[in-house]
Amino acid sequence: MKRLTCGVIGAGRVGLMHIENLLSLSTINIVGVSDLFIENSKTYLNDLGIYNLYADYEELLKDDSIEAVFIFSSTDTHEEITIAAARAGKHIFCEKPLSMDLKESASINVLREVTKNNVLLQIGFNRRVDLQFKTIYEQIQAGAIGDPQIVKITSRDPDLLPHDLIKRIGGLLFDFTMHDFDMARYMMQSNIVEVYAKGGTLIDPSLKNIGDVDTLAIVLEFENGAFGLIDNSRRAVYGYDQRVEVFGTKGMLKAENVSESTVELYTAKKQSMKNPLPIFTERYRYAYKEEVNQFVEAVLEGCPLVADGFDVIMAQRVATAAQESLLTGKPVKVDPSLPIIE
Amino acid sequence: MKRLTCGVIGAGRVGLMHIENLLSLSTINIVGVSDLFIENSKTYLNDLGIYNLYADYEELLKDDSIEAVFIFSSTDTHEEITIAAARAGKHIFCEKPLSMDLKESASINVLREVTKNNVLLQIGFNRRVDLQFKTIYEQIQAGAIGDPQIVKITSRDPDLLPHDLIKRIGGLLFDFTMHDFDMARYMMQSNIVEVYAKGGTLIDPSLKNIGDVDTLAIVLEFENGAFGLIDNSRRAVYGYDQRVEVFGTKGMLKAENVSESTVELYTAKKQSMKNPLPIFTERYRYAYKEEVNQFVEAVLEGCPLVADGFDVIMAQRVATAAQESLLTGKPVKVDPSLPIIE
Amino acid sequence: MKRLTCGVIGAGRVGLMHIENLLSLSTINIVGVSDLFIENSKTYLNDLGIYNLYADYEELLKDDSIEAVFIFSSTDTHEEITIAAARAGKHIFCEKPLSMDLKESASINVLREVTKNNVLLQIGFNRRVDLQFKTIYEQIQAGAIGDPQIVKITSRDPDLLPHDLIKRIGGLLFDFTMHDFDMARYMMQSNIVEVYAKGGTLIDPSLKNIGDVDTLAIVLEFENGAFGLIDNSRRAVYGYDQRVEVFGTKGMLKAENVSESTVELYTAKKQSMKNPLPIFTERYRYAYKEEVNQFVEAVLEGCPLVADGFDVIMAQRVATAAQESLLTGKPVKVDPSLPIIE
Amino acid sequence: MKRLTCGVIGAGRVGLMHIENLLSLSTINIVGVSDLFIENSKTYLNDLGIYNLYADYEELLKDDSIEAVFIFSSTDTHEEITIAAARAGKHIFCEKPLSMDLKESASINVLREVTKNNVLLQIGFNRRVDLQFKTIYEQIQAGAIGDPQIVKITSRDPDLLPHDLIKRIGGLLFDFTMHDFDMARYMMQSNIVEVYAKGGTLIDPSLKNIGDVDTLAIVLEFENGAFGLIDNSRRAVYGYDQRVEVFGTKGMLKAENVSESTVELYTAKKQSMKNPLPIFTERYRYAYKEEVNQFVEAVLEGCPLVADGFDVIMAQRVATAAQESLLTGKPVKVDPSLPIIE
Repeated sequence: MKRLTCGVIGAGRVGLMHIENLLSLSTINIVGVSDLFIENSKTYLNDLGIYNLYADYEELLKDDSIEAVFIFSSTDTHEEITIAAARAGKHIFCEKPLSMDLKESASINVLREVTKNNVLLQIGFNRRVDLQFKTIYEQIQAGAIGDPQIVKITSRDPDLLPHDLIKRIGGLLFDFTMHDFDMARYMMQSNIVEVYAKGGTLIDPSLKNIGDVDTLAIVLEFENGAFGLIDNSRRAVYGYDQRVEVFGTKGMLKAENVSESTVELYTAKKQSMKNPLPIFTERYRYAYKEEVNQFVEAVLEGCPLVADGFDVIMAQRVATAAQESLLTGKPVKVDPSLPIIE
Repeated sequence: MKRLTCGVIGAGRVGLMHIENLLSLSTINIVGVSDLFIENSKTYLNDLGIYNLYADYEELLKDDSIEAVFIFSSTDTHEEITIAAARAGKHIFCEKPLSMDLKESASINVLREVTKNNVLLQIGFNRRVDLQFKTIYEQIQAGAIGDPQIVKITSRDPDLLPHDLIKRIGGLLFDFTMHDFDMARYMMQSNIVEVYAKGGTLIDPSLKNIGDVDTLAIVLEFENGAFGLIDNSRRAVYGYDQRVEVFGTKGMLKAENVSESTVELYTAKKQSMKNPLPIFTERYRYAYKEEVNQFVEAVLEGCPLVADGFDVIMAQRVATAAQESLLTGKPVKVDPSLPIIE
Repeated sequence: MKRLTCGVIGAGRVGLMHIENLLSLSTINIVGVSDLFIENSKTYLNDLGIYNLYADYEELLKDDSIEAVFIFSSTDTHEEITIAAARAGKHIFCEKPLSMDLKESASINVLREVTKNNVLLQIGFNRRVDLQFKTIYEQIQAGAIGDPQIVKITSRDPDLLPHDLIKRIGGLLFDFTMHDFDMARYMMQSNIVEVYAKGGTLIDPSLKNIGDVDTLAIVLEFENGAFGLIDNSRRAVYGYDQRVEVFGTKGMLKAENVSESTVELYTAKKQSMKNPLPIFTERYRYAYKEEVNQFVEAVLEGCPLVADGFDVIMAQRVATAAQESLLTGKPVKVDPSLPIIE
Repeated sequence: MKRLTCGVIGAGRVGLMHIENLLSLSTINIVGVSDLFIENSKTYLNDLGIYNLYADYEELLKDDSIEAVFIFSSTDTHEEITIAAARAGKHIFCEKPLSMDLKESASINVLREVTKNNVLLQIGFNRRVDLQFKTIYEQIQAGAIGDPQIVKITSRDPDLLPHDLIKRIGGLLFDFTMHDFDMARYMMQSNIVEVYAKGGTLIDPSLKNIGDVDTLAIVLEFENGAFGLIDNSRRAVYGYDQRVEVFGTKGMLKAENVSESTVELYTAKKQSMKNPLPIFTERYRYAYKEEVNQFVEAVLEGCPLVADGFDVIMAQRVATAAQESLLTGKPVKVDPSLPIIE
């Protein structure tokens, strides 16, 4: 099978984790890596058989053999690097968001470059290809539950993040709930027209100092008249709690948490061994691989992308409205029409 | 064991169902029944061994042997009959609400009579004694999940009600969701301070003509800072869907639906036999008996009531606020302080 | 609905439990009770509204209003009383076995009297009407799993019985496993042709003194070529463990234990609240009522009996063979042909 | 981390599957492969980066850089090749059995060479490291269920094997049930002293022609007095059915089947999406990797082997006795003492 020749931009802590994931895939051939501090990772990357290393990503983009780039650099560089990669004619896999700038025009600028240069851009909404959620999606498409009327998403992290990390990647709504906004819209196949968000600092009151919350309860309204409910927490002591339920005219689909264990222990004291998987890297291990495989198929064979630039804009638009709802204490209308890229 | 000598007011369709339930309990002795159309039920009640039958409930209240009355008459008579029963010195078991009048003063009038005449009044919030929900409540009280932060209630009816019945008993919020408001407050042991309700007629658009909805998504805020999410539907084709989940600092409790079957069928086509019980009479069969037993214990032995007049006022207050939220499209504040009965 | 006028023979500890069960049924009218020590239960039975009380069961049998009798007297009286009841023209509901005499001719004698006098005899194999096992049976009959090939029964009691009770009612094979032999044959709809039983005293070695075991592992062969596996224990500390699984050419059916709770508790330590119901009176509460209802329907409307005299003989035949297998250490052939009652 | 330099003997259909598995492990470095028909796999193996290819395994054994060999050649070559590898000083990973010769002396010969040459020999009893069964084993060791009294193993293949393959690898008892015998002994940590096996050709009667069965029901007795029950079928239409249950004085542990899906579908018709994984390669994917990792740790760091030569002899001894039981229709005693290798 033909493999996709790729470069990676960003080899920090998260970047290296992603690189290891990419190396386990037979669909990808990584020929170069750039990072501002590339010297730190040199030995490690050489050991993995990657020898073309750059401090400047522009140098990597000059490698004509590279067909696609994976952008794992810090969020504040996404906008600039995506535009540069598009101009260099590389297909792009980028983590959300496209821009730190909450004004949508910034993200639209990026999309315009992507469109103009005729390259593909996939966003890392990996949950769309999770085995459980994909099954729900496919069952809905197959008509198993008729017309969807209510989508419920429970999404709880195992623990708090450091405040300085939150400052860099965004608070609960932008770092975490944004995945749920995308999932809700994906399941419903309808855009969101209103969001009402209640949030609080029930775990770590000092989050107020950086304008963040640790607990959220959210109601959504969709363009097709359906409703959504999302609840988030930063600390579920029993594991990484990720459940989706969709209710419709002909039935209901729900995905329970994934547990490594099917073992049940029965004693006089009543116990069992089934807790959710503990963290996103384990829970979405398959999805992290699968999204890359689908990106490769999109580039090489014209298959659909898992999620594109419009998808990330729509999710970010809801997160921004939810933020406004948190601040004003009122429901906020959301424009359900896709942005137009002239 | 001493049995409680009781009278029943209201022997229509619902009343007769309740009477049969009461007769299966060894804690109760029913000596009289009143109903406007008592002639219709005469043979039936005589066959059950009940011979003191009245068209006028005032006559029944004159029977000095009667210690307590069960009020199963139509909602619009609750207020008048409860007051009369209190004045006659009878302990009272009454279905919600206490009054059709949404102004709280009407219900407070009733409570004042109850208090003045020193009788007990229990409201039929039977879900509080449901085996599953009681277990969750007890586990929370025992500290199993630490401080509760999020309560989620899924409550879906198997099918639509006739429009004329809705006009008599109230729409989705007052007939159905009010149970969820009481459950949410009961689980959290904290009063509700804000409600935001989104509703629609996704199943039967003609409900708009009588000002009702068939689908609801609701966010609650509690006095203790916690949050609640409720979703309702009038038509779950797979059965009566009744689930409660409470998330806290040290864990999570959830009650799944009750199914009659533990049988699993595995074939090449993948099937199973476990659907929820189909309707409230089956799902809450135990609770309907248990609430009466606890009422008897309250009267005879001074044990606590399952739910009292304050509980129904607090639930109705949230339902009224939710109704306002539906109409205005805005979150509505709710006064969390209990009414004062001078 | 017409009710069946009945007498009860045997009002000891177990008999009184059964009488209370019978009284909760609207299909039965109990007009008389006999017991050797009837004086002991007089007040109790009078309070329940039963006034015709006899020390001698022959007196009860003379009551012409009685259409059917329930025999709850001690096992060693079953043979004599069943014969007398048959001769008195009463329909009979009797607990297993028909005779303490392991020679089949004793039970056949009883059946001959039943046949000659044209009365119905139902054996209390209540598990046949248990909701779970009935579902499996009906699914098999409906072809859901094709031809059954393997039946597996796990049947574990919550605790040891007193030695003197074992001496009166029979050891593990005759008191307990006999239900499993009947269930296996019922599920397979094929008679057993061989049994191999391994047994031990893993819980209470002193059981050896009375020739009993507390743990059994059994393999069955059926006339249709299928196989059965049964495992028994007298002490499952986690509750009354009752599971049945049937595997066939087109699929597999299994009934898991029945639990009162659907509540799940997730904490950092991983717990749940779902243990089996603790004891047979709770686990088979429905079945104990249902078998009587079906007996009444058999008498009044000619519906099929739940289990008849042939069924108990076939089960006892396997238990006797299993006992021989235990003693000889060898598999023992079982005659699969029904006894002939001339 | 140091990697183990290895050779692979046998690159047929199964061998290539194993090689791909080995290549995905970071603990292994494969430097050579031998196969009688090595030309057929040359391109494929070269593409995988393996260039030292041999038709004669003796040539591969001469490569001094090779520390360990994996033997995936046909069963009838295990004995000869294991001995040669031991004499060449290579650590050995071999699939069961050690010899086609049912006389134990053949396997003991192999062990003698392994011992004399001071190399490690691991048998591919991969189920011992399966996540579910390992959890049960560890819980038993930790005392969670007290003293184990009954072990139950359900092991059903998804479909029949071709007759000629059965002739080469052995029938149901030797190819399939042998894993269950090892698992039963491993869970109980006690040797088997008696086996009684009932078998039949309920799926494919023509199996009689080659002396095989497709369905088995087996009872085991252990040296410690405990019992075991095993049921096998060659065709479970709903997937690869692999369950283990262990019952003890203080509780019960059971491992249910592993399903890829946690999605539940509720409709008016009652369905679900949870079937077992379909085949052993998926069900034991983790175990196939983990057994190799543990073999590497045994070689490099002196950790314990997953299963050694004694383990395979003990399992084969039971399979042989079970075969005799099938033929004679009698229970067969099994010597529980380990063979002695002088």
